[in-house]
Amino acid sequence: MSQDINTAPASGTRDFLPNQLRLREKVFQIVKDSFESFGFQPLQTPAFERLEVLTGKYGDEGEKLIFKILKRGEKEQSGEADLALRYDLTVPALRAFANHRQELPTIFKRYQIGQVWRADRPGKERFREFTQCDIDIYGTAAASADLEILLVINQTFRRLGLNNHLKIHVNSRLFLQEMANAYRIPTHTAAHIMVILDKADKIGMDAVAQQIVQAIEQQGIAHQCQDFLHDMTQKNAKHLVVEKVGQQENGRKIIHDIQWLIQQVQLLQPNTKIVFDPFLVRGLSYYTGFIFEVFSEENKGALSAGGRYDNLSRTLIGHDMPICGGSLGIERIILLLEKTWQNTDHQQQTFFLTVWDQNMLAVTTQFAQELRLQGLHIYLDLSGKEMKHQLKFADKNGYRFCFIIGPDEITNQQVVVKDLVNQKQEKISCKDYRQVAQYLKKLVELQII
Amino acid sequence: MSQDINTAPASGTRDFLPNQLRLREKVFQIVKDSFESFGFQPLQTPAFERLEVLTGKYGDEGEKLIFKILKRGEKEQSGEADLALRYDLTVPALRAFANHRQELPTIFKRYQIGQVWRADRPGKERFREFTQCDIDIYGTAAASADLEILLVINQTFRRLGLNNHLKIHVNSRLFLQEMANAYRIPTHTAAHIMVILDKADKIGMDAVAQQIVQAIEQQGIAHQCQDFLHDMTQKNAKHLVVEKVGQQENGRKIIHDIQWLIQQVQLLQPNTKIVFDPFLVRGLSYYTGFIFEVFSEENKGALSAGGRYDNLSRTLIGHDMPICGGSLGIERIILLLEKTWQNTDHQQQTFFLTVWDQNMLAVTTQFAQELRLQGLHIYLDLSGKEMKHQLKFADKNGYRFCFIIGPDEITNQQVVVKDLVNQKQEKISCKDYRQVAQYLKKLVELQII
Repeated sequence: MSQDINTAPASGTRDFLPNQLRLREKVFQIVKDSFESFGFQPLQTPAFERLEVLTGKYGDEGEKLIFKILKRGEKEQSGEADLALRYDLTVPALRAFANHRQELPTIFKRYQIGQVWRADRPGKERFREFTQCDIDIYGTAAASADLEILLVINQTFRRLGLNNHLKIHVNSRLFLQEMANAYRIPTHTAAHIMVILDKADKIGMDAVAQQIVQAIEQQGIAHQCQDFLHDMTQKNAKHLVVEKVGQQENGRKIIHDIQWLIQQVQLLQPNTKIVFDPFLVRGLSYYTGFIFEVFSEENKGALSAGGRYDNLSRTLIGHDMPICGGSLGIERIILLLEKTWQNTDHQQQTFFLTVWDQNMLAVTTQFAQELRLQGLHIYLDLSGKEMKHQLKFADKNGYRFCFIIGPDEITNQQVVVKDLVNQKQEKISCKDYRQVAQYLKKLVELQII
Repeated sequence: MSQDINTAPASGTRDFLPNQLRLREKVFQIVKDSFESFGFQPLQTPAFERLEVLTGKYGDEGEKLIFKILKRGEKEQSGEADLALRYDLTVPALRAFANHRQELPTIFKRYQIGQVWRADRPGKERFREFTQCDIDIYGTAAASADLEILLVINQTFRRLGLNNHLKIHVNSRLFLQEMANAYRIPTHTAAHIMVILDKADKIGMDAVAQQIVQAIEQQGIAHQCQDFLHDMTQKNAKHLVVEKVGQQENGRKIIHDIQWLIQQVQLLQPNTKIVFDPFLVRGLSYYTGFIFEVFSEENKGALSAGGRYDNLSRTLIGHDMPICGGSLGIERIILLLEKTWQNTDHQQQTFFLTVWDQNMLAVTTQFAQELRLQGLHIYLDLSGKEMKHQLKFADKNGYRFCFIIGPDEITNQQVVVKDLVNQKQEKISCKDYRQVAQYLKKLVELQII
């Protein structure tokens, strides 16, 4: 009878209670509807993969965060792992696509909303179990596929009512390469500069410029990179860099492609804030073409990000395949929506049916059954307590409308509907269940007797 | 460039492709709607639990099947586990309820549809990752709660269109106890007899009776159990046993309670096949009151099962709490429905929009965007190939209705709609997108031009 039993979920994980879960599921449904409207199709992979599917994909830091599963039976004693919980959705989805290529279209548009697990240090808004939400287009290098990723992501934010505060930043890995070429920055220095640029949204452009100057001076190539250092330290650095890259035929083509994407989004989804951000890098190493991030005014980190990655498939399916995709930071989005969406208590849509006494149980349950068949949600009291206790329970747990069926009501084929918020009540006829249901559905809409 | 890369999912797990997944999600939605209509609320727990939450709950055989997660970081070398994937939904849900008691109603009706993991030997229709689907009522010992479990399970089968072939067997652990009392069967012998009775649906009643005779003879108590052996070996054994138990006051009460449940279900859900099965045992040891199983004509195993278990909470929340619940064998149900439901190809509800040439891409994408805003699903070609290739791709991948917008159509503000099944086509005006959308929604319904 000890009260010391620890009932908390494992560190970094969460139990979701009904109202939280309903909000999450509502968000997921809107996102799914948006993806489906573009013809994306759902694909689901298992929670765990053979260990070798995941190793070597996420870099040293990522690899440390993989949850590994112990071998079973006699092999448990070895202390070795052969399976691992998925770290993201991207790698397992690509494995699954490779495994089912014969059954799937050559150009395949998939989406998945699913949990991933990372043994990160748990913290505020950082969990070890969280949901990711991905779309990808496999098998085409067409610019129209890149455009579609931007359109569907933007459309999804619109459906969620979040678009007013968002700004989409677009760039291309090809532009960053061309920038290094145009300024004659050596390859290994370029890689270092990318790491610094990637911090721009966290530390600001001034600090970025300063760190770049330092890095180049430390490498003793300041003279060689004179033009670059000059341009980077100007207020209009972005403008100057684009101008420089645009002086070459190849650079012009890359800039044109980025601008085409931006123009198309502006044309097709007017009033979208979307900009060419020549210093956008995206941390992950696997991108090969266009990249994007979506920022909100409220949040520091990106709410969505993605791009084209044509090489990642090499280790998984044995050859390169053009892929572009994007991911919604769905946990961050849910946090934003939890603040802005009206907290609609679902219980207000469920009617609480009291039980007058045990002799009335059968007829009361009958009434519940009939209304359920009409599509209503009916909570039948199960406490067996007195009426006032039943009503107190209903009130405490957020049920607004209650029914009472007593002997008088039986005689007159009526039922009392009580509004616990307004403390009003009225009698309605229950001769025709369909009419009763219509009346009650209206009550739920209007939320008032 | 090796083709030797193994892309199969881990042993005993499955990738779900779009059409399979859509069928599963449709089933889950029907089940959820049914549960919600009774006022059950969703509760979700994490995929893994602290190891000690799960150990000691599932018996020796069950415990061997738990997937354990290796410690991380420096502790990985120890080869020890501290976490484990959930083995069922029952134990984690009860832990979560205990952890959030203050925020949840004292009588709480929860449901969960979620994956569980068991390191079983994979086989035909036996998986290491599979979905469970549970309902439970916490906090009340009322018979009306037992009734509600039966009603909601039966209603769910009706919504799934499966009820015609089903039969519900009801018994009570109290009846089985009383049976042992009435026949003066020693406690340890009674436990052995329950194990044998539990095999009735697999080996048949004749074999069961035979094994019981053997067991009792081996224990050398045949004389003491003479009445029981006599009754069990008769053709009308069930009838005789019920008669015997009914001779006692306590037995009569237990039989009455079971019969009340059955009568109520027959009254409230007419045409339900539901019977008192005095030999129904249910394998799991934790039941304390009424128990049920639902069998179909096609399947040997139960499609649903459950009952009342008032003691399980002891180790998890430190004291007993009345609980009754049930579980749908949702994987078995999905297998049945896959056979009977018409295989509706979802792609037939998605329109395939061809791209005449790259000059027409902008206006074609615009058309796609407008129709998506009207609620339609539009797949825009991303191949960049010739028209005949686009149409071939559409046909091969199950898209029935295709659009063509060429220069002529632009001039006349029209669009060609092509039915790939009937090889018919017609031109429609696209001046008003709302009208176009209405026409197309009708097309999807009728599936014919």
